[in-house]
Amino acid sequence: MNGAESLLRTLVNGGVNVCFANPGTSEMQFVAAADRVPNMRCVLGLYEGVVTGAADGYARMANNPAATLLHLGPGLANGLANLHNAMRARVSIINIIGDQATWHRKNDPPLYSDIAAYARPVSGWVRDVSTAQEIPEAAYSAIAAALGPPGQIATLIVPADCAWSDADEPITDPVLVPDFERASEDAVQAAAAALKTGEPAVLLLSGYALREKGLELSGKVAAATGARLLCDTFNTRLQRGAGRVPVERLPYFPERVGEMLAGVRHMIIVGSRPPVGFFAYPGQSGELTPPGCAVHVLARPDQHIIDALKRLVSMVGAEKADPARQPAQRPTLIQGPLNGDTIALSLAALMPEQAIVADESISDGFSLLKRTAGAPPHDWLFITGGAIGQGMPLATGAAIASPDRKVINLQADGSAMYTLQALWTQARESLDVTTIIYANRRYRILEIEHERVGAGAPGPKAREMFSLDRPNLDWVRLAEGMGVPARRVHSAEAFHRQLAAYLREPGPNLIEAWID
Amino acid sequence: MNGAESLLRTLVNGGVNVCFANPGTSEMQFVAAADRVPNMRCVLGLYEGVVTGAADGYARMANNPAATLLHLGPGLANGLANLHNAMRARVSIINIIGDQATWHRKNDPPLYSDIAAYARPVSGWVRDVSTAQEIPEAAYSAIAAALGPPGQIATLIVPADCAWSDADEPITDPVLVPDFERASEDAVQAAAAALKTGEPAVLLLSGYALREKGLELSGKVAAATGARLLCDTFNTRLQRGAGRVPVERLPYFPERVGEMLAGVRHMIIVGSRPPVGFFAYPGQSGELTPPGCAVHVLARPDQHIIDALKRLVSMVGAEKADPARQPAQRPTLIQGPLNGDTIALSLAALMPEQAIVADESISDGFSLLKRTAGAPPHDWLFITGGAIGQGMPLATGAAIASPDRKVINLQADGSAMYTLQALWTQARESLDVTTIIYANRRYRILEIEHERVGAGAPGPKAREMFSLDRPNLDWVRLAEGMGVPARRVHSAEAFHRQLAAYLREPGPNLIEAWID
Repeated sequence: MNGAESLLRTLVNGGVNVCFANPGTSEMQFVAAADRVPNMRCVLGLYEGVVTGAADGYARMANNPAATLLHLGPGLANGLANLHNAMRARVSIINIIGDQATWHRKNDPPLYSDIAAYARPVSGWVRDVSTAQEIPEAAYSAIAAALGPPGQIATLIVPADCAWSDADEPITDPVLVPDFERASEDAVQAAAAALKTGEPAVLLLSGYALREKGLELSGKVAAATGARLLCDTFNTRLQRGAGRVPVERLPYFPERVGEMLAGVRHMIIVGSRPPVGFFAYPGQSGELTPPGCAVHVLARPDQHIIDALKRLVSMVGAEKADPARQPAQRPTLIQGPLNGDTIALSLAALMPEQAIVADESISDGFSLLKRTAGAPPHDWLFITGGAIGQGMPLATGAAIASPDRKVINLQADGSAMYTLQALWTQARESLDVTTIIYANRRYRILEIEHERVGAGAPGPKAREMFSLDRPNLDWVRLAEGMGVPARRVHSAEAFHRQLAAYLREPGPNLIEAWID
Repeated sequence: MNGAESLLRTLVNGGVNVCFANPGTSEMQFVAAADRVPNMRCVLGLYEGVVTGAADGYARMANNPAATLLHLGPGLANGLANLHNAMRARVSIINIIGDQATWHRKNDPPLYSDIAAYARPVSGWVRDVSTAQEIPEAAYSAIAAALGPPGQIATLIVPADCAWSDADEPITDPVLVPDFERASEDAVQAAAAALKTGEPAVLLLSGYALREKGLELSGKVAAATGARLLCDTFNTRLQRGAGRVPVERLPYFPERVGEMLAGVRHMIIVGSRPPVGFFAYPGQSGELTPPGCAVHVLARPDQHIIDALKRLVSMVGAEKADPARQPAQRPTLIQGPLNGDTIALSLAALMPEQAIVADESISDGFSLLKRTAGAPPHDWLFITGGAIGQGMPLATGAAIASPDRKVINLQADGSAMYTLQALWTQARESLDVTTIIYANRRYRILEIEHERVGAGAPGPKAREMFSLDRPNLDWVRLAEGMGVPARRVHSAEAFHRQLAAYLREPGPNLIEAWID
C-alpha cells in the first residue's frame, strides 16, 4: 500500500470521510487511491477557495472535520482566505497538500514554494513529511490536532514520492476526542459572584454556548440572575428560532456596540473574548468593553463550555429556572420595494424548519436576525473572519453535511464574485441550496466605510472602485453558466413568490434580487 | 497631505501610474486620495487574483511596474498564486496592502493576520511602515526594489492610521534605473571558448534575451558558431514571428527535453538557469542537463544580458554574421474537427501584426508555437510559475498597457474558472481582448499526469476529479454574465469564421471552442 492510500485509509478510520478537492499533478496518487478506499467521498471544487470554504461549512454542520486536497503552495494560497475564516471560527479542517518529490525540491522547479510558510498563519498544526513511513502516524496526528481543543486547522504536506512509495499499514485506532480542560472553580465562582451582585451583567456566548444545549443553560442563568445573553457579531453556528433561547448579537459598528453595552458592569465571557471593533476608526481605540465593566472569563474557547455553564447554573441556583424563549412569529403580508428588509421578511415568512442559513449578506443584511427571530428553528452560519467569498462555499459544504435540510445562502453580489465557482459544485452534487443574490450592484459597505474613515464623499474615481455596474453582473446567466437554474426579480412580491417556489423544489437554484 | 496621498504621489512621480485594485475598509484613504492624484489610473478587479495577474501582464508589456491595492492578509492571499507566477517571471510589481490601525493590531480583530508572512514567499522586498512620515521614502524604495535587478515584487504594508495621518511631501526625485551588474570577462570568455570548440552547443535564453535586440545578438552568435538557440518552456515574454530570429522551446515533459538536448556538449546560460523538470516522476531525477554537457553561465538573471550578448558576439567574431530569420508563412485552408491543432492553424492564419498572446492553453496548446512561427511579428506571454488562473488576468493587464494592440488569450477551460472575474474588468475597461476557451470539459493534463506518475488508468472517482462536464460549463453565459459578447463553435470552419470576425472588431469578446 502506498503512502497516499495509507493516508486516506487512516483518515477514514478516524472518521474523516469527505474530501473537498482540487488536485494537481502532485496529488495524483491521492486521486488514484480514492478509488481503492470505498468510504472516502471526494467532492470537486473548481477553485480552492470553494474547497476550503466548503470544508468549513461541512465541519460546522457535521461536527466532524472534512479533509481538503490542494495542489502545492499556490493551491493552498488560493484557499487561504476561507481558511482564515475557518480559523477565526475555530473549525476543524485537515488540509492534505501535495509537494514536489523530496529530491526535486532542491531544483526549485517553477511550481515550488514554501508551502509551510503559507500554511502557518492559518494552521494550529503543520507537518511536512519526508518519508512514506511517517504518513499513517502523521495523518492520525492531523485528525487529533484538528479536533482541538478548540477546533483548528491541521495541515499535512506530502511530497509526491512519499505518496507513491510503500508505506506502513493505516492506523486503525479510534481517534480520541481530545479532553477539553475544565474551567477552574475560581472562574465559575467569580462569574457567579458577579451575577449575584444584581448589577447589570451580560453573558457573551460563543462556540458550543450557541448550540441548543448551551443556550438552554445560558437561558437558565439569565432567567435566574437577570443577565442578558449576547453573542459576537460573527459566529460559527448559532441555533435560533421559535422555541429556542434568544441571544442579542453585538452590532457591527463600534458605536452601536457602545450603545448596547452602556451601563453594563459585568461581562461573563463564555467561550468568546472581550469585544473588539472589526476596524479601528480615527480617534477610536477598537476595544469595546465599556469603561467600568469588569470582565470575568468563565470559559476560554479551548475549555469545556457546556460543563462550565452547567456548573454556573448550579452555582447561581438556576436549575429550575425557566429560560425566556423566542415566540413563534412570522410575517404575512410582504410588499413594496425590494430591499434588504423585505427580503428578510420573506425569508422569515417562508424559511422551512431546520433551514441552514449561510449569511454573507453584508450591507443589506442588517435587519435579518431581527426579522427571522420567530421563524421555525434553524441554524445560522456567519462569515467569521471577515474575508469575503465565504458564503457560497460555506453553503456548499453545509449542504453536503446535511442532505436532508434546506440551505439558504444570503449572498451579497460583490462577495459572491469571489468564489462563484461554488455554484458548479452545487449543481454537480445536486445540493439543496437556494442562493439569494443581493444585487445592489456596488460595494455598498465601502461607500459607508469611506465616509466613516473620514475620507468624505467619494469622488469619481472612488465611485468607480465601489460600483459593480458598467457592466452589471447578470447573475441569471452566471448561475446558468454553471448549471444552476436562476431567476431575477425586481419587486418584493415577485421575490416572495420566487422564494416560495424555489424553497419548495430541490436546489440548487438562485434568485437575483435586484435592489434599487 | 495624508500618508495615502503622499504614497500615491510618490508612485506617480516615480513613473508608476496604473493601480490595479480591489480595496476594502483599510484602503479607503488610498481610494479617496486617488481622486486628488490626477495621473494615477485605478482599475478595479472583482477578485485579487485578477488584480495581481493584471499587474503582471501590464508590467510585461509596459516595461514598467504597476501598483496593486489589496485588502489586508486575505486580500493578498487571494492574489498570491499570480504573484507566484510573476515572481517566477521576474516581473516588477508594487503591492500596496492596507492593514489594521497600528494600535488596533494588538486587539487581534477578526480580519487581522500576519500580512508580511503571506508576502515574503513571493516578494523580494517587504516593508511594514509604522508611521505616516515613513511613507514617501518607503514608497520610493518600493519602486526601486521592484525594478530589481532583476525585476521583483515589492510589498508595502500600510496600517490604516498611517494612511490617514499627516505625512511628509511626496518624493519627486527620479527613481534611478538600477545598475545591472555586467557579466564577468571570465564568463564571456568561457562561453566563447565553448562555442569555438565546434562541439554541439546551445544558448538557453531568458529575460531580455528573448526580446528583439537579444534575439538579434543571439542569432549572430548562432550563425557564426552553429550553436542552437533555445528558450525555457515558460517565458515572461517572447518576441517572435516572421522576420525575427526563431528559438526552440524546451518541451514540457522531461523525456522530450532529453531528446532535444541529446548530444549537446555545451549549454550557455543567458539569463536563464539549467533546465529542471516541472515535476519529478518515479525514477527520474528532475535535473535535465544531459550527461556530459558542460554548463557555462554567460549571464545570470540579475546581470546585464544584452551587454553580455554584445560582448559574446564580439568575442566569437560574429559582428557581421547574418542570423537565420523566421520566414513568413501562414496556413490557408483550415477544416476538419475542432481541436488544439486546428485552433493553432486558424490563429496562425489570422493573428494580426503586433498581436499579444496570453497563453494558458495547457494540454491543447502543444502545437501552437510551431503553427504560429511564421505569423506576423507578435509577443507571446506564458504562464510562468505553473499556477493556473493566470491567462485571463495577464491578458487584461497586457491590454491596459498596450491599448493599440490586439490581445489574444488562449485559455484552457479548467484554468479559466480560477479567475474568470477578469472578463468583467475587460468589459468595464473596453479592452481589446479576444479570449479563446479551449472547452475540452476536463482537466486533461491531469488525465495525462495520472498515467505518468504510475497511477494507472483512472477509476470512477479519479475520472470525477478530472471531468468538468456534469454539468458542462456554458462559457457563452458566463462571459455574457460579465458583459463580454461570446459565441460557441463546434467545427474548425466555424471557429475560423468567428475568430476572423472577433479579431476584426474591438474586444472584449470570447469564443468557446467546443473540442470533442
